[in-house]
Amino acid sequence: MAPTKKANILDRLNNGEVIIGDGGYVFALEKRGYVKAGPWTPEATVEYPDAVKQLAREFLRAGSDVMQAFTFYASDDKLENRGNKAQETHSGRKINDAACKIARDVANEGDAMVAGGVCQTPTYLTTQDEGKVREEFRKQMEVFVDNQVDFMIAEYFEHVEEAVWAVKCLKEFNVTVAANLCIGPEGDLHGVTPGDCAVQLVNAGAEIVGVNCHFDPPTCIETVRLMKQGLEKAGLSAHLMVQPLGFMTPDCGKQGFIDLPEFPFGLEPRIITRWDAHKFARDAYDAGVRYIGGCCGFEPYHIRAVAEELAKERGHNPAGSEKHDSWGQGLYLHTKPWVRARAHREYWENLKPSSGRPFCSALSTPSQWGVTAGDELLKQQKGETSCEEINKLAQHSCKIKQIESTEVPTLTEGGH
Amino acid sequence: MAPTKKANILDRLNNGEVIIGDGGYVFALEKRGYVKAGPWTPEATVEYPDAVKQLAREFLRAGSDVMQAFTFYASDDKLENRGNKAQETHSGRKINDAACKIARDVANEGDAMVAGGVCQTPTYLTTQDEGKVREEFRKQMEVFVDNQVDFMIAEYFEHVEEAVWAVKCLKEFNVTVAANLCIGPEGDLHGVTPGDCAVQLVNAGAEIVGVNCHFDPPTCIETVRLMKQGLEKAGLSAHLMVQPLGFMTPDCGKQGFIDLPEFPFGLEPRIITRWDAHKFARDAYDAGVRYIGGCCGFEPYHIRAVAEELAKERGHNPAGSEKHDSWGQGLYLHTKPWVRARAHREYWENLKPSSGRPFCSALSTPSQWGVTAGDELLKQQKGETSCEEINKLAQHSCKIKQIESTEVPTLTEGGH
Amino acid sequence: MAPTKKANILDRLNNGEVIIGDGGYVFALEKRGYVKAGPWTPEATVEYPDAVKQLAREFLRAGSDVMQAFTFYASDDKLENRGNKAQETHSGRKINDAACKIARDVANEGDAMVAGGVCQTPTYLTTQDEGKVREEFRKQMEVFVDNQVDFMIAEYFEHVEEAVWAVKCLKEFNVTVAANLCIGPEGDLHGVTPGDCAVQLVNAGAEIVGVNCHFDPPTCIETVRLMKQGLEKAGLSAHLMVQPLGFMTPDCGKQGFIDLPEFPFGLEPRIITRWDAHKFARDAYDAGVRYIGGCCGFEPYHIRAVAEELAKERGHNPAGSEKHDSWGQGLYLHTKPWVRARAHREYWENLKPSSGRPFCSALSTPSQWGVTAGDELLKQQKGETSCEEINKLAQHSCKIKQIESTEVPTLTEGGH
Amino acid sequence: MAPTKKANILDRLNNGEVIIGDGGYVFALEKRGYVKAGPWTPEATVEYPDAVKQLAREFLRAGSDVMQAFTFYASDDKLENRGNKAQETHSGRKINDAACKIARDVANEGDAMVAGGVCQTPTYLTTQDEGKVREEFRKQMEVFVDNQVDFMIAEYFEHVEEAVWAVKCLKEFNVTVAANLCIGPEGDLHGVTPGDCAVQLVNAGAEIVGVNCHFDPPTCIETVRLMKQGLEKAGLSAHLMVQPLGFMTPDCGKQGFIDLPEFPFGLEPRIITRWDAHKFARDAYDAGVRYIGGCCGFEPYHIRAVAEELAKERGHNPAGSEKHDSWGQGLYLHTKPWVRARAHREYWENLKPSSGRPFCSALSTPSQWGVTAGDELLKQQKGETSCEEINKLAQHSCKIKQIESTEVPTLTEGGH
Repeated sequence: MAPTKKANILDRLNNGEVIIGDGGYVFALEKRGYVKAGPWTPEATVEYPDAVKQLAREFLRAGSDVMQAFTFYASDDKLENRGNKAQETHSGRKINDAACKIARDVANEGDAMVAGGVCQTPTYLTTQDEGKVREEFRKQMEVFVDNQVDFMIAEYFEHVEEAVWAVKCLKEFNVTVAANLCIGPEGDLHGVTPGDCAVQLVNAGAEIVGVNCHFDPPTCIETVRLMKQGLEKAGLSAHLMVQPLGFMTPDCGKQGFIDLPEFPFGLEPRIITRWDAHKFARDAYDAGVRYIGGCCGFEPYHIRAVAEELAKERGHNPAGSEKHDSWGQGLYLHTKPWVRARAHREYWENLKPSSGRPFCSALSTPSQWGVTAGDELLKQQKGETSCEEINKLAQHSCKIKQIESTEVPTLTEGGH
Repeated sequence: MAPTKKANILDRLNNGEVIIGDGGYVFALEKRGYVKAGPWTPEATVEYPDAVKQLAREFLRAGSDVMQAFTFYASDDKLENRGNKAQETHSGRKINDAACKIARDVANEGDAMVAGGVCQTPTYLTTQDEGKVREEFRKQMEVFVDNQVDFMIAEYFEHVEEAVWAVKCLKEFNVTVAANLCIGPEGDLHGVTPGDCAVQLVNAGAEIVGVNCHFDPPTCIETVRLMKQGLEKAGLSAHLMVQPLGFMTPDCGKQGFIDLPEFPFGLEPRIITRWDAHKFARDAYDAGVRYIGGCCGFEPYHIRAVAEELAKERGHNPAGSEKHDSWGQGLYLHTKPWVRARAHREYWENLKPSSGRPFCSALSTPSQWGVTAGDELLKQQKGETSCEEINKLAQHSCKIKQIESTEVPTLTEGGH
Repeated sequence: MAPTKKANILDRLNNGEVIIGDGGYVFALEKRGYVKAGPWTPEATVEYPDAVKQLAREFLRAGSDVMQAFTFYASDDKLENRGNKAQETHSGRKINDAACKIARDVANEGDAMVAGGVCQTPTYLTTQDEGKVREEFRKQMEVFVDNQVDFMIAEYFEHVEEAVWAVKCLKEFNVTVAANLCIGPEGDLHGVTPGDCAVQLVNAGAEIVGVNCHFDPPTCIETVRLMKQGLEKAGLSAHLMVQPLGFMTPDCGKQGFIDLPEFPFGLEPRIITRWDAHKFARDAYDAGVRYIGGCCGFEPYHIRAVAEELAKERGHNPAGSEKHDSWGQGLYLHTKPWVRARAHREYWENLKPSSGRPFCSALSTPSQWGVTAGDELLKQQKGETSCEEINKLAQHSCKIKQIESTEVPTLTEGGH
Repeated sequence: MAPTKKANILDRLNNGEVIIGDGGYVFALEKRGYVKAGPWTPEATVEYPDAVKQLAREFLRAGSDVMQAFTFYASDDKLENRGNKAQETHSGRKINDAACKIARDVANEGDAMVAGGVCQTPTYLTTQDEGKVREEFRKQMEVFVDNQVDFMIAEYFEHVEEAVWAVKCLKEFNVTVAANLCIGPEGDLHGVTPGDCAVQLVNAGAEIVGVNCHFDPPTCIETVRLMKQGLEKAGLSAHLMVQPLGFMTPDCGKQGFIDLPEFPFGLEPRIITRWDAHKFARDAYDAGVRYIGGCCGFEPYHIRAVAEELAKERGHNPAGSEKHDSWGQGLYLHTKPWVRARAHREYWENLKPSSGRPFCSALSTPSQWGVTAGDELLKQQKGETSCEEINKLAQHSCKIKQIESTEVPTLTEGGH
């Protein structure tokens, strides 16, 4: 299980290669039945390794150059947050270790690289204590080092401060670090601009910077563009990376898709098409990004679309194109003549897909609780959330909502 | 690989049990990279059996009582239609056989039944010759008999005449037959009403009748309702079955979702949520349907939602509920308070999900080529479709479309 | 003020002429500031005769062949319903008389016909007493006879029973009667089909039958088609008439646009374009209707569009076309080249106009109180509605609505 | 016809009074049949003075403090542009003079002020010659001075340069000048920011500055906010004014609603409700604007809504409220209980009105010809536009459009 010869990501990026990432494990495996929405933790690596491996294999086949170990939210503190039993049952060490082994197995089936991953911690939200937070990352890093991952991804950080701590911690282990925030053009949750965030991350040691999750492809590309400008202005340079949502979210506020009323169980109408993924890949490339993948909502066929769009630049189609003639030309074999008539690029590139939902609006209004930068409500806990707490939150939510919705008025005589 | 003790579907239905079917293999495996859109044939059973088996396992875990062999469109004539190489490379016999073995293996992991499946043939469209069409089914049946399937599903028929031939052919092998048309309330493509279709199918020997594919859940339930009325009026009875699309398609015409401009590569905004699946399960149950599953677009989590909705009637939740607290209550463990506030049924049941696509309309206009009941253009062929043919079809399509869209006018002086 | 030489509407219809009606007075004058939404009564004929006359003149100029006296809801019982002071201040007689004089004055400016009008009464809803109801119509008819109107329109009836009483009462005065219900394809509020309604109206003596108000143009045309079929089946014949809403209302239930949440102060996004009016005129003509006009929402320019669409059949454009080159060709004179590029029929005929409202849905759910056919709540009264009553109604409405909308749940521990 | 005692607008604004303007004459009179869309010139003042006067009277009744003479686009060069015959038939002098007399007559019915108006000229687009442009304004000013208007409005300028010339010309006549550009937050068509525009206008002598037309209420308010900031930064001050479109246009580009595909004959679904007008009035007031009115699309009832929203600040409701109980309370008198249930503010304030058009999208893509700042295509001419020219423009438009829409592909064998 030694690193493959193609393992050095920096060499490859320095050589101008386009690196394709993978898609979103938590969302895909939630739909397949192996991850629970809510905690979103990856104990499936221990419980259902074959299911995780199958998904990894699909991303590999779709064109991913990187098998990212499925270690999202697998810090010890998250695995025991709010009644989560994963830490107690399996332990973070075992979950992270199993993830690395799955990633390596599949990577070796196709000469891909293996990346370890860390992300934001409940400890940061609750304590803002650098020492405690870094300790969480350190415990995970030991496993990644044992498993000789090819490089590290620090991702899904809403606060650049915590991301900087993560990068510093990871760099102590002498690995290449790609650092991704889950922010949009407005910057992190304390108001640090994307440009300044990028500067801080590079100064902390990250060789690759960018964004992942929380926003749709166009918004993420725009954010990376702002990061690039910030770096240039500061006289710095770094490789750029982008792994957006596989959902259309133009109506997001600063906190991203978490705040949309559809999160996480009603996002279906927002799922991107393969043609949206084509456009994303081209736009990211044109913006100078060379590490291009996806996050929540990106299924294997979306990654395949990225790989097909960039086939010329990369010199080859992905293995999965065996079952996908580009731009709909598989429809040459369809039995209905009017469907065969759709077997060309112009058709799909210009399609404006309908939702079939005339009682739904195109955009929705994000939750606006305004507690992002350190409210008491954000503190995490080991104990289970109680029904009482949920009732209180639901009532609070209704109250906020009533500002924009119907309530029973109490009119007084003469009021008209 | 003998039938399980729970194998007799008629006994179970007669006892009032609710049987849950599986979801859509071709669409799910297309997105995973193992089926080609266009031909939609299941040679993956031979080429990528592990990928097929994984999906079957997910449906089992989600609550499916039936493992339907992945033999959709696996008649010999379809496997060599319009340049398809699957027949030549693998042969229909091997593809069907592998599908049966996968289905039985997974069924045995969970005490489920195995169903074989046949569907409409290119031979019918091209020849309308009963002998030739039945010969296609007969070849498949030999494999199903060898594999001792528990019962047969004849499904996805647009013409009741062909479906009746299929039922008659299958009944010669002394098996229970569930017969499903892919029609809507307007009836089959020759204008036979759903009620009359049901009567013909039952008279031909089908013990279970219903519809699958082509229309969304509400439309399919309405169609089955019409079938039920037809049977009652004729003094017949049968068990009812429904396996609709996992897409919202209120704008469909008589021919179903094939005609929507979004078919097959732009259907994402129409994907149903798990809550739509809940509603579907309840509505189907209330309409008297007791075999309830899904077709194209139904992913494992949709089947799980069906099983959760009917948990009380069935006496148990599916295995997959281990990772899914009903009605969003997994969000008790979410880190953000405003997301925890969504952890209750009222929230999700009333959500009207936005598309995030303000430049797209809610509904679209189906293709209306009007060639459904026997045009020359519908004839199938063994040879590949040529570019010239596609160009001609695309031009024809543009012409039809121009009736509803902008073209450059040629005005003459004085015309205003 | 004698009838003009063109006054006999039956002669004109019998000669195959297309008669163009006028548009909607109450809605247009409400927006101009002279009618109050709620009571919708026409005391403006006495209070602001110039404003009423100006609107009539605009309809005349737009092509209307009929000046319908603005006597909508001007029965004595309505003029004093729920605190309305119009009866007390002006009296029904004066309001109806002033309306007739305005109509005749304007008609004489352009050789048009004058029609009197009666519509449904609160007395019917409250008493269902034929004698009392006919007495209301009789009082109005005396004024119409005094003013020598050219024919009568009995319109806006939700219950065919009351409409039949109206026709019988009017025929006693020896006038031509056009009878219009405000129903859709589902029939009147007691479930009488459009076909049966038409038969009853013709049998009662109406020479012209059709529908007005409550539904959009396509729905109204469909309803008249059903009326025509009913008449043919009964071996009867009559001239057909249609005066629909100037709003798009495909989401209406049986009771029409009154039930839409947007009624009456949020209907703007539903207003039809002039091109919708063109299509309406053509479709109505093709359905065999020869008396074509509009109701609420139809402004002068919509009537002009009807007249322009049928200019060839009628042999002339309306006077108002002086200021309107057909199909947008006035844009020949626009300063911007890209706007001049829109100066042709294909452009406007194919435009799908956007709402500019991405947070609104395309369709909405009508109120469904289910009290249409005689609930106590429908009883009318002379006294003002009190705040208390409104509060009670609003609470009832919220309750109905909560079925489809969010409420605060009360969860119990262990409920998840 | 002497000025009224309330005539000094500056005194009134300096005293903190809220001044309400009128609505859109060209659009309202186009729908009533007296103005031609395309040239949009006001010869109706001579041809149909009663119709113009009636509309003015409605605005007065709705609460307008200013009767703006209907002299939009009434410069001599516009009245003979592209085949317009108004100059030849009537002459600019007569049209402007008739407009002033109508305005004064109606103003005197209600103690309102009279404003003259000038706007951008074809001469500017064609020559950019200050002398020639000012000569056009000078000819109009002579009429306004003869008629003793109370103050002048220079409005609807896309280029601040021309607006500055206008202000300078007007100030030579020793009148108070309100200067309005038809720009959005991106600034004028040469890229001058709103802040800089405001500074230039005040430096040229304007006492009141703001924007009118081209954008919806929220966009116009945002633009005036930017103007205010610009003035403050420059140490200048002026009274602020806003008269936006009565259409929702969030999808506009820099050039405003002219570029929307719906302009001018398909804007109906974008029409604002009275509740949108309420919100506009409040938002404008809160932004510090004290001269608040409307432009194209603002009908009398929209102005009434502005006056009702600001009734408390102004100390009185408009005369027109006689027929309008605020916030829908006229529905107390409605016959249907579920409509009476809507008789309160919360209902209407929270309504999200549906379009009834599920085949239309919420937003559309503006024309993007990119010729705004001086292309040859923008040059105006006295002669009529020919069919040939329109054909050429339509072809050009199709070409631009094909970038985003379907065309017939020419595929070559092997291309798939």
